[in-house]
Amino acid sequence: MTTYLEQQRARIEDALERLVPEETAVPPAIHRAMRYSLFAGGKRIRSVFCLEAAQLVSSDPVPDIEAISCTLEMVHTYSLIHDDLPALDNDDFRRGKPTCHKVFGEATAILAGDALLTLAFQVLATLPHTSGDIRAALATELSRAAGTVNGMIGGQVADLEAVNNSFDPEKLEYIHRSKTAALFRASVCLGAIAAQATPEQLAAISRFGENAGMAFQVVDDILDVESSREELGKTVGKDVLQKKVTYPALYGMEQSSQMAAGFIGEAQEALRPFRENAARLKELSEYLVSRKV
Amino acid sequence: MTTYLEQQRARIEDALERLVPEETAVPPAIHRAMRYSLFAGGKRIRSVFCLEAAQLVSSDPVPDIEAISCTLEMVHTYSLIHDDLPALDNDDFRRGKPTCHKVFGEATAILAGDALLTLAFQVLATLPHTSGDIRAALATELSRAAGTVNGMIGGQVADLEAVNNSFDPEKLEYIHRSKTAALFRASVCLGAIAAQATPEQLAAISRFGENAGMAFQVVDDILDVESSREELGKTVGKDVLQKKVTYPALYGMEQSSQMAAGFIGEAQEALRPFRENAARLKELSEYLVSRKV
Repeated sequence: MTTYLEQQRARIEDALERLVPEETAVPPAIHRAMRYSLFAGGKRIRSVFCLEAAQLVSSDPVPDIEAISCTLEMVHTYSLIHDDLPALDNDDFRRGKPTCHKVFGEATAILAGDALLTLAFQVLATLPHTSGDIRAALATELSRAAGTVNGMIGGQVADLEAVNNSFDPEKLEYIHRSKTAALFRASVCLGAIAAQATPEQLAAISRFGENAGMAFQVVDDILDVESSREELGKTVGKDVLQKKVTYPALYGMEQSSQMAAGFIGEAQEALRPFRENAARLKELSEYLVSRKV
Repeated sequence: MTTYLEQQRARIEDALERLVPEETAVPPAIHRAMRYSLFAGGKRIRSVFCLEAAQLVSSDPVPDIEAISCTLEMVHTYSLIHDDLPALDNDDFRRGKPTCHKVFGEATAILAGDALLTLAFQVLATLPHTSGDIRAALATELSRAAGTVNGMIGGQVADLEAVNNSFDPEKLEYIHRSKTAALFRASVCLGAIAAQATPEQLAAISRFGENAGMAFQVVDDILDVESSREELGKTVGKDVLQKKVTYPALYGMEQSSQMAAGFIGEAQEALRPFRENAARLKELSEYLVSRKV
């Protein structure tokens, strides 16, 4: 699994390298900041999910699939840069490195986030070997997942509002579904759409992605409690210090682990129609909950 | 002209009203902030340009043209919200009203900007009566104009870097072309693309938009010097106080006015192939330089 993951990541890194303007491109400051955060050692899980979903639907190579998968890293990285800003989560470290605004200043960090979001849509709009209808369908999926209504920004706003508020299971689920699961769902849906999935295939893959995303976020909450700063590369137990609404805070560690396993079960159940072809996507979803970072 | 402009603006306001989630949509905080800035009394010049360019190319009504024109207001408003932030231009007032972050806080303002940018691409991707190829072409144009390479973000970065630096005519032109003229060019190009312009028509309209945008920005620089806070609705002569690179600072007021007129001449010259059909677009470009706010 590790070797396989490394191979997929190498494909993604290569594609990202080609898609983002070079550091010397005018004005250099913004391209340096974009690249700093984009190449700060992310796990590329969303992109790998995208590549796998495409392969599940189509045994032939899917045109432009690497570029499509990269747009998920761009949107994910933009969201991290903005979330880390002093006005939001005020994080100085991310993956063990100083955050974008600590290195380049707040103004450039805000604009670098904006630029990565913009670039994601530019890449989708200009995919060279993909029909206009599919390019528009991909942008539809990504924009909804990143948006305010049941999307990433909506989840982030609810998350900020929930700090110091009383804990509420419904709100917690809304936050995790919108802030994290929506982009995971989009990750596999982008792959499936590019591979011209049938509506039934797309629905199954969408359900898989949403549940895998929920599992990922619950595990993230658990790791935030468990990990030392050295391991996770961000300030320890920040969620707890900021009184964020998390699964461990609401349900305790043991029940949270069970819930993560439950989401993975749901995710794998959704892939049943694909039978043994879905083996690798199932394995990837197990990796999500077994990871230590 | 005024009545005509008011009619066009009413079409745009109606369409914007329908495209942006209601204030009650969950989570309400973000939708309130988006709407506050979007409906803060903008002149809708970019949208009107878009409508006019479409009409210049096609005598038949162009499907979805109001929605297309609204994406320009979304991108423009997002850029204003982020530019006004304390880390960037640190403006407390815009069009005589407190800026987004003064009313809703910095976190919500950052996310409201993100959300408007995302919504613009969602609207283009989901236009109900426009082909996939055209939807993708529109998103290509808008994303490039909003991006880092000769686009709005690139111009903004160069503008921030230029503060307190020595004045340089080439840099000044780069900033204005990227920060302002690129989105004006996109405004008319979106209309032309939606109306299925020929490559020759698109090139002419693009040249018009770029030059009209340059004129608009030079006049903006001049108004910043001339206007009192009451008239312009933002802090007086802020550009001067912040030692921004502007046309009046580099060339003086009189030469700046001549340069604005020169850009308008170029813009109108570009429309020559359309002969008398371009009368209204020409008139609009004159309005840009004669305006007092």
